[in-house]
Amino acid sequence: MLTYSFTNIESDSLYIHLYKCIKSDIIHGAIAPGTKLPSKRAFAKNLGISVITIENSYAQLIAEGYIYSIPKKGYFAADIRNQSNQKEKPSLAESIPSSSECHTYAADFVSNQASKEQFPFSIWAKLVRELLSNHQTELLTNPPSGGSLFLRESIAKHLKDFRNMQVEPAQIVIGAGTEYLYGLLIQLLGREKCYGVEDPGYRKIAQVYKSNQVDYRYVSMEQDGIRMEDLDHQRVEVIHLSPSHHFPTGKVTPISKRYELLGWAAKDKNRYIIEDDYDSEFRLAGQPIPPLYSMDALEKVIYMNTFTKTLASTIRISYMILPKHLVSRFYETLSFYSCTVPNLEQYTLARFIFEGYFEKHMNRMRTYYHKKRDYLLEELQKSGLAKYASISEEDAGLHFLLHLEIPCSDEDFKLRMERRGIRICALSEYYAAPTHRPEHIFVINYSSLDESQIKDAILQLTLEIKKISSP
Amino acid sequence: MLTYSFTNIESDSLYIHLYKCIKSDIIHGAIAPGTKLPSKRAFAKNLGISVITIENSYAQLIAEGYIYSIPKKGYFAADIRNQSNQKEKPSLAESIPSSSECHTYAADFVSNQASKEQFPFSIWAKLVRELLSNHQTELLTNPPSGGSLFLRESIAKHLKDFRNMQVEPAQIVIGAGTEYLYGLLIQLLGREKCYGVEDPGYRKIAQVYKSNQVDYRYVSMEQDGIRMEDLDHQRVEVIHLSPSHHFPTGKVTPISKRYELLGWAAKDKNRYIIEDDYDSEFRLAGQPIPPLYSMDALEKVIYMNTFTKTLASTIRISYMILPKHLVSRFYETLSFYSCTVPNLEQYTLARFIFEGYFEKHMNRMRTYYHKKRDYLLEELQKSGLAKYASISEEDAGLHFLLHLEIPCSDEDFKLRMERRGIRICALSEYYAAPTHRPEHIFVINYSSLDESQIKDAILQLTLEIKKISSP
Repeated sequence: MLTYSFTNIESDSLYIHLYKCIKSDIIHGAIAPGTKLPSKRAFAKNLGISVITIENSYAQLIAEGYIYSIPKKGYFAADIRNQSNQKEKPSLAESIPSSSECHTYAADFVSNQASKEQFPFSIWAKLVRELLSNHQTELLTNPPSGGSLFLRESIAKHLKDFRNMQVEPAQIVIGAGTEYLYGLLIQLLGREKCYGVEDPGYRKIAQVYKSNQVDYRYVSMEQDGIRMEDLDHQRVEVIHLSPSHHFPTGKVTPISKRYELLGWAAKDKNRYIIEDDYDSEFRLAGQPIPPLYSMDALEKVIYMNTFTKTLASTIRISYMILPKHLVSRFYETLSFYSCTVPNLEQYTLARFIFEGYFEKHMNRMRTYYHKKRDYLLEELQKSGLAKYASISEEDAGLHFLLHLEIPCSDEDFKLRMERRGIRICALSEYYAAPTHRPEHIFVINYSSLDESQIKDAILQLTLEIKKISSP
Repeated sequence: MLTYSFTNIESDSLYIHLYKCIKSDIIHGAIAPGTKLPSKRAFAKNLGISVITIENSYAQLIAEGYIYSIPKKGYFAADIRNQSNQKEKPSLAESIPSSSECHTYAADFVSNQASKEQFPFSIWAKLVRELLSNHQTELLTNPPSGGSLFLRESIAKHLKDFRNMQVEPAQIVIGAGTEYLYGLLIQLLGREKCYGVEDPGYRKIAQVYKSNQVDYRYVSMEQDGIRMEDLDHQRVEVIHLSPSHHFPTGKVTPISKRYELLGWAAKDKNRYIIEDDYDSEFRLAGQPIPPLYSMDALEKVIYMNTFTKTLASTIRISYMILPKHLVSRFYETLSFYSCTVPNLEQYTLARFIFEGYFEKHMNRMRTYYHKKRDYLLEELQKSGLAKYASISEEDAGLHFLLHLEIPCSDEDFKLRMERRGIRICALSEYYAAPTHRPEHIFVINYSSLDESQIKDAILQLTLEIKKISSP
C-alpha cells in the first residue's frame, strides 16, 4: 500500500499534504493510470490518520481530475496523459481573426481610426495622474447607471457651446461604445419594434440588430437622404439616421428633409429617430448643421455620439441623449445595469472637456485633417490619376468619395490594389440590396492615413488604372 | 424693413453674419415673436446681397428654431420665450435615483463593494504612467473583439497558478462587467434557449434576462445546491450557478453535486452551465474548491469572473472563458463588436497581474478581510447580541448569514435598523418564489465596512432587538 511521510508537511494541513503527495506521484508516473488507490478506511489505518482526512484529499484529487471513482469499486488514478495530449492540439489562438489593424498596408483607405500621432497624451497623462493622486474616493465610488454626473455635465456644456444643443445632464447616458448603446436602446424601446437602417450604411448597426434577433429593415437612400416611402412601406418604427454626414455616401440631409423626417416620427407614438452624429465635429466647410435633436419639439429624437473619432477608438466612450419622457423609463427599467465605462476614463474625459482641452484638441484636429485632405486632393489633381478620377462629398467629415473610370469590377480592382499594398473599399460594398449599387465609386477614409503614405498610394492607384485601361 | 450693417463681419461669411444679427435681435426682443421677416428677394435687394445668402441665413435660423416658415406666407420670428420657459420646469436630474452609495449609513451591511482604502493606487498609478509614456501605439491600437491578448495571457496564467485551470488565452473574452457578458452570451447561445437562475440568487442576473425578454426560470436551491428535479421540470437549458460560493446563502456545492450537474449538462447538446466564480479568491478557510470548469470534459461550462470584487467595481473588467467549440462561433458571429474595455484599463490590469502585483494584492486582501471578519465575529460574540444570534457560512467569501431571534417581520426589522442608520438586508429578499422563504436570516456583507463602524453597528442591532423583545 502507498505510504507517505508526514514529517515535512510544513504549514500544510494533513489532507493537503496527502493530496500533494498523491498528485505528485500521479504526475510523475509513480502511480500509473488506472491504478486502484487504497480504500479510505485501509489507507487511514495504514497512515495513522483519520478517514475524514483521506476523504478530503480524495475529493480534491477527484475535483482536479487526478483520480476518479467508480461506485462500489473504489478510487483509481486518472490517465492525465490524455489531458496533456489535448493540450498539444493546434492552438485555438489561430481561431482569433487578427484585426485588420494588424495587417500592414502601404496605405489604408478603409480604417476610420483617429490619427494616432495626434492623441493628446501629455495632457491626458497629466489629468490621469492628478485624478489618481487627489480623487481616489470619487474614482472608487460607483457612478449612477447613466454615468458620472461630472462627465454628463461636461458633455452637456460642450453640446451647448459647440452644437447649441439644450441638454440636461440627466438625459445623457454614457456607455462603452455606440454598439453597446444600440443594444441598450433595443431593451429600452422594445424588441417588438421594427427597426430601420440606412442602405447603404454603417454595417455594424444592422449586425447589432441581427445579433439581437430583432426585426430590422434596410431603407434605401435617395439624393437627399432616406426614402420616405420606404419607411412607411416597410413599417419601420425606429429609424437610424446619420443626417449630418451619412456614412458612406457623405451626404448631408437638407433642412426640408429633416422636417419631413420629424413629421414622419410625429405621426405615431411608437416612432423614434436615432440620430447618429458620429463625425459632425469634423465638418470642414460651412457652418455645422444643427442636429435633428435640436429641431425636435416632440421628443422623438435620440441623439448618439462618440469620442471614438474625436479622441481614440480605444477610449471606448460613447453617449446618447434620451428625450425627456424616456429618461424616467430608462431609470425605472434599466438602471440595474452598472455604467460600463471605468471611472478613471469618465473623470479624465470630463476634466479634459471641462478644462477646455477638448475644444482646443478639436480645433487642432480640424486643422490637421483639413490640411491632410487638401494635400490628398492636391496630390490627386496633380497626378496621372486625375484623368480617371473625380471627387465628391469632400466637405462633410473624414471621408469622401472617389469615382474612378475603371474597366473592371469593384471587387477586382480592390483585389488588384490589395496586391499593391493599398487597402481600399468600394461604396457598393456598403449596400445590402443587390440592386442600384453604384459602381466604380470608392470610399476614401483619410483620418488614419499618414501624409507620407499619400504620394505613393496615388502612384499605385495610377499605375494600376493605367495598366488595366491600356488596350 | 430690417437693415444690418456688413462692415464688422470680421471673418464670418455674409450669411453667417446676417444669421447672427437676426438671431441676436430675436433673442433680445428687437424682433417680436410672430413678426413677419422680409421676403428673401426684397431683403436681398435692400441689403445689396444675393438671394442665396438670405436663403442660407434663413435656413440656419429655421434649423435652430429662431424662425419658422409658413408655405406661401413667408418667414416669421418664433416665440423663443416658450423654449426658455420649458427650461424652467423642475429639473430632470431629480429623476435620476441616487445610487445607494450616496446615502450615508453609520454601517452598511448590504454594499458588496471592495474596500476603498485597500485599492493599490500607487502601483496602479505607476503602471498607468509607464503605459502612457512608453506604450502609446499599443494603447491606440484596437484589440481583438475578445480583448487585448496580453491581458488574456495574464489572466490565463493567473488562473493556472491560482485555480489550476487550463485555459488558452483565445478562450477568454474580456468585457465591461459581468452584466454585459451575460447579454453577449444570450446572443452567442441563442435567445430561444430557456435560461435558469438560482432562487435565491443575485437579482441582477434575472434582471438581465427579463430586460432582454428571454425565457428564464427560477430554480430553487436545496441544501447542497440547485434542485436537479427543477432543472428538468422547468426545461432549463442554460443554468447560472455560483457553486464555489452561492450568493446569498454562502453555500458551497459539494463535489458529488458538481458531477451531477455536469451529468445533467451532458445529456443534451443544447445544455450549458454558466459558472459564476465571483468571489472564489476570498475563500477564507480550506483549499479553494476547483471550479466546475476544471471538472468539465465535455465543453459544457462557461466560466465567468470579475475584478469588481478583487480590485474595484469602478474598474469594470470582467471575463468569461468559453468552451473551445464556442470560441469559433464567437469569432464568427460576434467579433463585429469592439471590446468594451478601454485599452488603458486592459493594459494596466495585464501588467498588474503579469508583474505579480495582483497575487500580492490578493494575499493582502485575504488577510485584511480575514481580520475584519474575525473582529466582527468576535465583537458579535462578546456583545449582548450573541444571545439572540447565530452565524453560518462564514468561511466561503465576503459575506455570511446572521440568524436573529426577532419577534417581528424581516421587513419591519430592516426598517427599524434603517432608522438607526444601519443598512441590512434579509435573506428572504433574494427569493423570487413566495414560498419557502427563510425568516429572520440576514445577509452580512462586510467587505466595504470600516472596522471603526463595527462596534456601534452591533450595539445598535442589540439595542433594537432588546427593545422589540422586551415584553
